[in-house]
Amino acid sequence: MTQFAAMSREELAACKAQLEKDYAAFKAKNLSLNMARGKPSTEQLNLSTPLLSILSDPAECIAEDGTDCRNYGVVDGLPEAKRLMAAMLDDDPDNVVVGGNSSLTMMHDALAWCIDYGTGGCEPWLTLDTVKWLCPCPGYDRHFRITETFGMELIPVPQTEDGPDMDVVERLAANDASVKGIWCVPKYANPTGCTYSDETVRRLASMPCAASDFRIFWDNAYSIHHLFDEASQQDHLLDIGVACKEAGNPQRYFKFASTSKVTLPGAGIAAFAASPANVAEFKKHLGVTTVGPDKLNQLRHVRFLKDAEGLAAHMRKHAAILRPKFALVEQKLSDGLRDVGGCAWSNPRGGYFVSFDAPNGCATRIVELARQAGVVMTGAGATWPYGRDPHDSNIRIAPTLPPLEELGEALDVFVCCVKLAYAEKLLG
Amino acid sequence: MTQFAAMSREELAACKAQLEKDYAAFKAKNLSLNMARGKPSTEQLNLSTPLLSILSDPAECIAEDGTDCRNYGVVDGLPEAKRLMAAMLDDDPDNVVVGGNSSLTMMHDALAWCIDYGTGGCEPWLTLDTVKWLCPCPGYDRHFRITETFGMELIPVPQTEDGPDMDVVERLAANDASVKGIWCVPKYANPTGCTYSDETVRRLASMPCAASDFRIFWDNAYSIHHLFDEASQQDHLLDIGVACKEAGNPQRYFKFASTSKVTLPGAGIAAFAASPANVAEFKKHLGVTTVGPDKLNQLRHVRFLKDAEGLAAHMRKHAAILRPKFALVEQKLSDGLRDVGGCAWSNPRGGYFVSFDAPNGCATRIVELARQAGVVMTGAGATWPYGRDPHDSNIRIAPTLPPLEELGEALDVFVCCVKLAYAEKLLG
Repeated sequence: MTQFAAMSREELAACKAQLEKDYAAFKAKNLSLNMARGKPSTEQLNLSTPLLSILSDPAECIAEDGTDCRNYGVVDGLPEAKRLMAAMLDDDPDNVVVGGNSSLTMMHDALAWCIDYGTGGCEPWLTLDTVKWLCPCPGYDRHFRITETFGMELIPVPQTEDGPDMDVVERLAANDASVKGIWCVPKYANPTGCTYSDETVRRLASMPCAASDFRIFWDNAYSIHHLFDEASQQDHLLDIGVACKEAGNPQRYFKFASTSKVTLPGAGIAAFAASPANVAEFKKHLGVTTVGPDKLNQLRHVRFLKDAEGLAAHMRKHAAILRPKFALVEQKLSDGLRDVGGCAWSNPRGGYFVSFDAPNGCATRIVELARQAGVVMTGAGATWPYGRDPHDSNIRIAPTLPPLEELGEALDVFVCCVKLAYAEKLLG
Repeated sequence: MTQFAAMSREELAACKAQLEKDYAAFKAKNLSLNMARGKPSTEQLNLSTPLLSILSDPAECIAEDGTDCRNYGVVDGLPEAKRLMAAMLDDDPDNVVVGGNSSLTMMHDALAWCIDYGTGGCEPWLTLDTVKWLCPCPGYDRHFRITETFGMELIPVPQTEDGPDMDVVERLAANDASVKGIWCVPKYANPTGCTYSDETVRRLASMPCAASDFRIFWDNAYSIHHLFDEASQQDHLLDIGVACKEAGNPQRYFKFASTSKVTLPGAGIAAFAASPANVAEFKKHLGVTTVGPDKLNQLRHVRFLKDAEGLAAHMRKHAAILRPKFALVEQKLSDGLRDVGGCAWSNPRGGYFVSFDAPNGCATRIVELARQAGVVMTGAGATWPYGRDPHDSNIRIAPTLPPLEELGEALDVFVCCVKLAYAEKLLG
């Protein structure tokens, strides 16, 4: 098949006419499919059924240090929960704070505290005229929305296969003291699936920053979310904490993780890790806002997942469910679009997303076409700050929620929409 | 017995010598007792044991609208959880947001949003040079600490038997636009146990405020926490929402409640209620900070407590455990201090505390004496803003946690410490 861009107008018009027929046929099916959000499927949720009733007797509610987890207190989390989450965060349990069900809330709060009270002895960011924040793009819309809501100026940074373009990051961080930090999803990134190279991590840790309180918000949401069981097929991430310490910038990073996509997204546990000084700061602020997290849910997780090996074993069960879905995305996109040209997409080894780059100017139209045919996608532009993709190109595909058969159908619709939008664009 | 203040120096010195012997005897026992924090006892926690395993199967995790509570979403809480918490909050479910395990966090966040973004279309409070906050005293230390941490100027307002001294509140609110709000624990208040009179509620709702965005933070933490089962022995509180609406100030109040002292303090659910406009504002901000609360825990509470009648029946079981403890406090204080003079204390019909007013200048010494004899009390001054009781008089007694026998022993020590400190003071 000739690539669309190489076709004559007549060829392309004929092709478009056929696509319109195909599209009309999809529409006639009155589909209701969803590839919008990175939600685990029911099958995945069922893996954690034992978690529900793992504590059923008061005697089971006592933590290893004798704390009755039903009562008030323990603002920074149970010792055994710190150990469990330290395994996810690749850190020392002493440097970990375990919280409630949302790592996003911990990120929001950590940022709010920098703004209201300052961090590392520096002035509160609310006293500054401008605070700028680096946003590797495409990235995670909820990250961007937090910093946008706080009134920061969001600066897009190109995302490469090795993480953010470090030449750009280094230049911005070195020369502008109002650049206070960066969002990072360093492993199996949302949405590109890339994992930061060791060099990227080391450059982030060691780069000169005009702001001495520059902070890396290291949302390691997919740290153990491999699609393959063999170590050789898994990505490896250098620990930002170690890299920062080695570089003489031990206060530079805040790490976050949660079990949202390990156990149950509505009822997981979240954690924060940082240097001892930053943890002390975090705990001081946290102690004002709460008497303590839900320790019973922390204990449930410890009893269910146990340790690093327990986590890995559990994640292999997720991988077995997710592998065919990601394989199907790759197959459908490859079969449907290889010969069309103009498109690119990721084929990640972990995480929750496939990042799709449509021909420039087509993303909004594709998502709209899909919507009208009953397939909900993440909004075009969502992967960029302020929801504005300058190329109108990137679309995030979330293949985890639908059953395999529905996913295949949704992808067929999607491929048809991509081709139709591209043909429309070329024909002007 | 002659009251201490009426004794001759000789009589008092002899009395003090005996008290010192009694105190030394208590010390020799090497006690380790705690009347510091308002925690439910183990016996109370056990009332909620069915809650632990009430959801054990995936099919039980589905909310009435079909939502799988194990997955992401539903930022403002389940419909059935709103109904349950509306019963506690004396409000319409539509005006309720159900959150995580901490109403304190919801109060903190609501305040933070007023500061960062403003409320009711008014300017953000962070743009103001000074924000003042009214603090009925004695009051709740964690409330005061939130507003103190935000850098507000805390203004103590005398607490009467009918709630805050409304002459003072009205004068401050009417004449100073930097007075932005007030902390209220309107029923079985922490620590005095008073319940606001209908007149107090109506005056709060209707008083002229120089600040159009004046907000009443209505922490109805003990709304259903009666000590007695008969309606005639229970306090009744006028609803602040109705009163504000009637007064033409429908935006003035934010209500809060939680099940922390209904089910399990570490693993309860919290809720917020306000006008539709304020709820819309709250939800908008909340949607930035989280993907949603722990809906499984909400569902557990609905299945366990069911409705208003279920709540009331459950609270009667708490009351049966707590009644003898509060009776013992009243008896021990009355027997031990009636004839000493100079002291006053509350005898509440609900809630978690007895408020004790020692002779001026004695509270710090009493708490220190008790501590040295192995009885931990809430720190003197804790019931005042900045931890500074100008009279050094108020002590909060929390009788709920210790078993009855330990409580009796702790009160014996306390009474001895009160008398000794008072005698020391009078002897100069």
